[in-house]
Amino acid sequence: MRYSRISVDGRAVWARVDGDVLRPLRGSPLEGGGNAEAGRAVPVADATFLPPVVPNVFYAVGMNYKRHAEHAGVAIPERPEVGYRANNALIGHGQAIVKPDGVEGRFEAEGEVVAVIGRRLRRATYAEAREAVFGWTIGNDVSARAWQHADRSFWRSKNSDTFKPMGPWIETDADPLAQTTTVRVDGEVRASFRTGAMIFDPYEYIVETTRYITMHPGDVLWMGADATVQLEPGSTVDIEISGIGTLSNPVLSESRAERQDDE
Amino acid sequence: MRYSRISVDGRAVWARVDGDVLRPLRGSPLEGGGNAEAGRAVPVADATFLPPVVPNVFYAVGMNYKRHAEHAGVAIPERPEVGYRANNALIGHGQAIVKPDGVEGRFEAEGEVVAVIGRRLRRATYAEAREAVFGWTIGNDVSARAWQHADRSFWRSKNSDTFKPMGPWIETDADPLAQTTTVRVDGEVRASFRTGAMIFDPYEYIVETTRYITMHPGDVLWMGADATVQLEPGSTVDIEISGIGTLSNPVLSESRAERQDDE
Repeated sequence: MRYSRISVDGRAVWARVDGDVLRPLRGSPLEGGGNAEAGRAVPVADATFLPPVVPNVFYAVGMNYKRHAEHAGVAIPERPEVGYRANNALIGHGQAIVKPDGVEGRFEAEGEVVAVIGRRLRRATYAEAREAVFGWTIGNDVSARAWQHADRSFWRSKNSDTFKPMGPWIETDADPLAQTTTVRVDGEVRASFRTGAMIFDPYEYIVETTRYITMHPGDVLWMGADATVQLEPGSTVDIEISGIGTLSNPVLSESRAERQDDE
Repeated sequence: MRYSRISVDGRAVWARVDGDVLRPLRGSPLEGGGNAEAGRAVPVADATFLPPVVPNVFYAVGMNYKRHAEHAGVAIPERPEVGYRANNALIGHGQAIVKPDGVEGRFEAEGEVVAVIGRRLRRATYAEAREAVFGWTIGNDVSARAWQHADRSFWRSKNSDTFKPMGPWIETDADPLAQTTTVRVDGEVRASFRTGAMIFDPYEYIVETTRYITMHPGDVLWMGADATVQLEPGSTVDIEISGIGTLSNPVLSESRAERQDDE
C-alpha cells in the first residue's frame, strides 16, 4: 500500500495511492486510522504533495555506504550512530529546492531510502525493529559542502529551507535492502547504487538508537547515500528507488525563487 | 505573564500561572489563543508539568560563554551557529532525569535560558527578532561527557531520553540578558553566572539563523551555559534563573527508574 499527504484546499490530507489517483482518507494511517475514504479522488498528476510526515524527531545517518565514506575521506563507522536533520528544511515531491545565493562549489543531492516509524519503540530487538517500520519513502539530503566544511554544525549546509525533499509517498511493502537507487538530473542518470550496500541496515540503527532513545510513530530515519550528484539551478533532480517510487524536485536559484514568489 | 503546559486527566492543557495556582486555558497562547479560561484551577504544588512546548525544531547553542569554551578547550565561536537537540529527550519540571547504566564519569547539568519563538520568521532584523520571541523558559542540557567525546554525534550523549528537562513555564516579560542563573544540587549552590555574559545574544542567533532557515512559533532556542555541574542519582538539581523561575528535577539511576516503573 502507498500512502501520501497532499494539500487539498490548503489543508493537509492523507491519501491512498490507487494507480493514477490519490484517494483522500479520514485520519492518519500512522495513528491506526486511514481506512475510510473522504472526498474526491485527486489525479496524481494534479496533486500538491506534502512531505509524507513531519517527524517528532528527524533522524539521519551520516556515512552509511563504504564508497561514500572513502570518497569523503572519513573513517568507516564502527557503530550505527544516528545524527539529525531539521523539519524546517522539509519539502514535498514537486516543490523547488532553492540554492541560496551564498552557496559556491559543490551543491549536491544524496538519494536515500527513509524508514518511517510506525510504533513507539524502546529497547527494540531486531525483530521488533522490523515490525515497527510502517513503510519506506525517499529523501534527498541536499548539501552545500563549503558550508558543511566551514561550519561547526550542519545547520545551514544541510538544514537550510528546502534542503530536505521527502516523498512522494510511503510504500508499506518494499524491502529496503533489495532496491536500486537511481539519481537523474534532467532525465540523465548521474548515479545508481544498490540500497543493500549499506554498512548498517535500518533495523540495526533502530536497535542501537532505542537502547537510549524512545522512537515514536512518524519519526523518520534517513539511511544515507552511496553517491553524490551536483545540482544546478534550472535543472530537475529525480531520486528513483525501485519498489518505492520517484521523488522529483526542480532546483532554483534564490533570486529566481524570489521572483516567482513575487509573480 | 507566565504560561505553562500541564497534564490534566492525561491531556496536555495550557495554563496561566496566577500566584500559587495554574488556571487552565482554551487553546494555545502561541497560536493567538489562551485568553479564555477553562476548567478548575490547579495548585502549582499539585500540578504535573509538561515541557512548555514541543518544538517543530529544537535549536541549541553550543559554546556561548567564554569561560565554558575555555574550560572545554575549544575555540571561542566567531559566528552564531546553531546546533540541534531532539524532542524525545524532553521532560517537564519535576520529572526524573534518568542516568543510563552505561554512563561513567562526568554526567553534567547545564542551566540555560531558552527563547520560545512566537512568530514565523525569515530574514529577521535584530528588532524583528526581539519582537518575535514569545517568552523565556529554562532548560537543563544534561550531558554524558564520555559519550560526547566517543561518539560521532550528540545522539546519546545529549539526546538520551530524559536528558532535556525544560520548564516550568514560559515567562513573557523577562530580559534574558539581565538575569542570574543559579544551579543547585540538593539545595546547595554549585554554579552561578550572569546570563548576559553570552558571546552572542538570542537575537543575534535568530538574525543569523533566519538568513537561511524559517523559524516557526513554538521553536525553542537554548542559549548555552557558563558552567557545568556534576549530577549523581539520588539528588535533585534545580536551575533557577532570576525573573523566570526554577526548573527542578530529581536524578535517578536507570535501574532505580525501572523499579519505580514496575511499582
